[in-house]
Amino acid sequence: MLSARVTFSVFFPSAAHAVSSISSVAALYYPDEPTQPSAVTDSIPGPRSVEYNRELGQVFDNRASYFVTDYSNSIGNYISDKDGNQLLDVYCQISSIPLGYNNPALFATAQSREMASALINRPALACFPPAEYATILREGILAAAPPGMDKVWTALSGSCANETAYKAAFMYQAARKRGSLDFTDEELTSVMENKAPGSPDSVILSLDKGFHGRLFGSLSTTRSKAIHKLDIPAFKWPMAPFPTLQYPLADFVKENAAEEARCLAALEEVIAQYLPNTIAAIVVEPVQSEGGDNHASPAFFRGLREITTKHEILMIVDEVQTGVGASGKFWAHEHWNLSAPPDMVTFSKKFQAAGFYYSSPDLQPKQAFRQFNTWSGDPSKALIARTIYQEVTKHGLVERIAQVGDYLFQALEALSKKFPNQMKNLRGQNFGTFIAFDCENSTKRNDFLLKMRANGVNIGGCGELSVRLRPTLVFEKTHADVLLGAMESALKAM
Amino acid sequence: MLSARVTFSVFFPSAAHAVSSISSVAALYYPDEPTQPSAVTDSIPGPRSVEYNRELGQVFDNRASYFVTDYSNSIGNYISDKDGNQLLDVYCQISSIPLGYNNPALFATAQSREMASALINRPALACFPPAEYATILREGILAAAPPGMDKVWTALSGSCANETAYKAAFMYQAARKRGSLDFTDEELTSVMENKAPGSPDSVILSLDKGFHGRLFGSLSTTRSKAIHKLDIPAFKWPMAPFPTLQYPLADFVKENAAEEARCLAALEEVIAQYLPNTIAAIVVEPVQSEGGDNHASPAFFRGLREITTKHEILMIVDEVQTGVGASGKFWAHEHWNLSAPPDMVTFSKKFQAAGFYYSSPDLQPKQAFRQFNTWSGDPSKALIARTIYQEVTKHGLVERIAQVGDYLFQALEALSKKFPNQMKNLRGQNFGTFIAFDCENSTKRNDFLLKMRANGVNIGGCGELSVRLRPTLVFEKTHADVLLGAMESALKAM
Repeated sequence: MLSARVTFSVFFPSAAHAVSSISSVAALYYPDEPTQPSAVTDSIPGPRSVEYNRELGQVFDNRASYFVTDYSNSIGNYISDKDGNQLLDVYCQISSIPLGYNNPALFATAQSREMASALINRPALACFPPAEYATILREGILAAAPPGMDKVWTALSGSCANETAYKAAFMYQAARKRGSLDFTDEELTSVMENKAPGSPDSVILSLDKGFHGRLFGSLSTTRSKAIHKLDIPAFKWPMAPFPTLQYPLADFVKENAAEEARCLAALEEVIAQYLPNTIAAIVVEPVQSEGGDNHASPAFFRGLREITTKHEILMIVDEVQTGVGASGKFWAHEHWNLSAPPDMVTFSKKFQAAGFYYSSPDLQPKQAFRQFNTWSGDPSKALIARTIYQEVTKHGLVERIAQVGDYLFQALEALSKKFPNQMKNLRGQNFGTFIAFDCENSTKRNDFLLKMRANGVNIGGCGELSVRLRPTLVFEKTHADVLLGAMESALKAM
Repeated sequence: MLSARVTFSVFFPSAAHAVSSISSVAALYYPDEPTQPSAVTDSIPGPRSVEYNRELGQVFDNRASYFVTDYSNSIGNYISDKDGNQLLDVYCQISSIPLGYNNPALFATAQSREMASALINRPALACFPPAEYATILREGILAAAPPGMDKVWTALSGSCANETAYKAAFMYQAARKRGSLDFTDEELTSVMENKAPGSPDSVILSLDKGFHGRLFGSLSTTRSKAIHKLDIPAFKWPMAPFPTLQYPLADFVKENAAEEARCLAALEEVIAQYLPNTIAAIVVEPVQSEGGDNHASPAFFRGLREITTKHEILMIVDEVQTGVGASGKFWAHEHWNLSAPPDMVTFSKKFQAAGFYYSSPDLQPKQAFRQFNTWSGDPSKALIARTIYQEVTKHGLVERIAQVGDYLFQALEALSKKFPNQMKNLRGQNFGTFIAFDCENSTKRNDFLLKMRANGVNIGGCGELSVRLRPTLVFEKTHADVLLGAMESALKAM
């Protein structure tokens, strides 16, 4: 399936010290990566995309499709569609592709006997763990653990990473209340009817505009858009405001500090409406991604940590979209300098594997089979995550992303001054390539996204009027220049 | 990683007509499969299992572990532990391993370039579908669709298969009530606060002792054991009784018919307590597996179909554990001869891929991005599912399982007459190898499971006092004889 354009032979996996000083990791991985997008059809999706999509649509809901993709011809930072168009990809499967398309190191992992065994002998991990699972975790997912965290529970998606974290929080708080006592008869019988005290009326608090997933528990904490939630029953869980900052930050120091103080005070008010320990946890994203790439300052998050500690509420940081390097730190919450680490950190997307980190052994319920399910993760994904972590480390990709992010942000700042009406509220300074801006309204935003595609760039929106950048971790200055050129041309045409 | 014992060269994938008449598919796949279990340590888990498990336990909750597994040395129906013990496996990763350990056809799929591309270029399937996805689905997961179903939504686990099916049911019922109207302003604002009418108080009804998963929505429909549910908030969704049949069936024809009639009448009573269309769907397993392998007659399920049709309630059949051949039909609900197909059928486990089947286009919400998430399934799992389906078909494995199931059931019936106190309520006649029985109490059941392990058989329990058989689809008469010998010896020793 892989085309001849993808050359694997140039990859030297053991030359760690040699590559750290090279100028382009993308060139090392992808000597044949295009230097520019190329278009063969007048519009995208082209006729072959439309035809394949119509066929797929007969059996699978693909109405959200941008175009049908030819993954075998995609390479590095460039995604190919079925018509042969090749686009610079700064959306990357909704922030997921870590090392570029058809990465040779990941290819070697995919073709290994270890991977074959993981795929064809898929274990019930918690019951019949493979002997090598501890090592795979230690060398990959756990080696990447945020500071202060040394345990992991593996899951399958961002939604179930959050939901298993919520379950851990509920069981933890119930165990604290219960102390050394066993379950009561009333708990044991009421729970079978979905009633308190066995199924308590405890809650997870989330912040306005946050997105934490689409299953029933996670969706109850999602506050991004109505269309994500309509018609689906939800737990009556509470919400507190998330700051709306004004940009450029340097011009609104006082206003933004006041806005963040207002939000923290409002959070205290929500908490005051609940009995102690009824709010099991607060879940928060370092940048509210689906909700519009909303940032807050490290001081705000430190305030959140202080409030949660004071009220014995657990703090879950949802790094499903921000994690694994794109922010210029491996974990975005490392930007905050918290007084104490979060209680749990969830991950998925760029790590391909999903789950949550924690440190307190009390977040592991006393009894077995409670934080449990058949698969409890997937060793094939843990193998992929290990290679991702090792490549990121070997090539210093986080530091490189911090650098290219600074370059990109400065250039975008200049562009936004040139097009002040089309590009507003540029944000993500000193935050790697995790950069976004607003358009005048959602119509113009959608028009911009389409113009960018016509200019050879696959780029995503978020919120009502925002454009978000989510390139790979091997997005470099040359790619940034292609992106900037396409943006300038699109903005001029608007 | 794979040991020299696993010989792949003898596999002839194209000899379809030749193999259909062969006496043993297991021998074709696994010429070196053991003929008997072998023990090298006095007890299982042995010292190396204990040591590896202690190491893993430092970072991962593995207290549910039976033993640490050496998948590279597992072969066919035999699972190896890290100490070198080799056990006949009739538990199979909680009913998941379809074609045996280290299956050569699956190995070929795992090593294919198509698989490598799926693993290293993991797509957001609904946004950037690979051109080949329609074909992969049509040749695999969809070719296996239950009668009357021609569409699929792919997911990642049994829990999220059920939860996405529930979401489809809620959106369907809300769309029916709404008719041609658009969302109201009240819906659009209330939903952001998790309140009605945007987040309606609609419900999914499930049956007593059913198990449908462990995330928040699915767990609210799970009614198997308190330990699965304690301390986790649940939707106040209703429950109706599931029949408790008496065995042997031939001796209790009248009593069992009365019991099933009682349960259907009770269901009608529960429905009467709700406004029309408030119960979006009923979810039911063909055999309640985690809840104790509880069977009901085809007539009961036909009654359920009639009641759901009458009240315009959707019927979701949860085939996560029963699907893919083990019942002697590809889908267990094919035993029922329903007047109309179920509205949705969910799957996972033995198919390795997960999701739900349906046919009505109305189960696809009118707007895009509602039944949606980043990955929306996993093409690497769809590739595995395709090979599973093709191998099952090529070798007639469903028919073979029906035959070996009949052989096994007769032998177990004889055994239960020999040990009437130790083996009660034998069930699963004419239901493939999906066979179970009860022990006197849970202590004796757990003792039996341990004795079986000491006798070289890995076997699972369910419910409070049941033993369930969940072998692979290449479990044959020779394996049944090993199982029966070990059982007789264990029962004698009790």
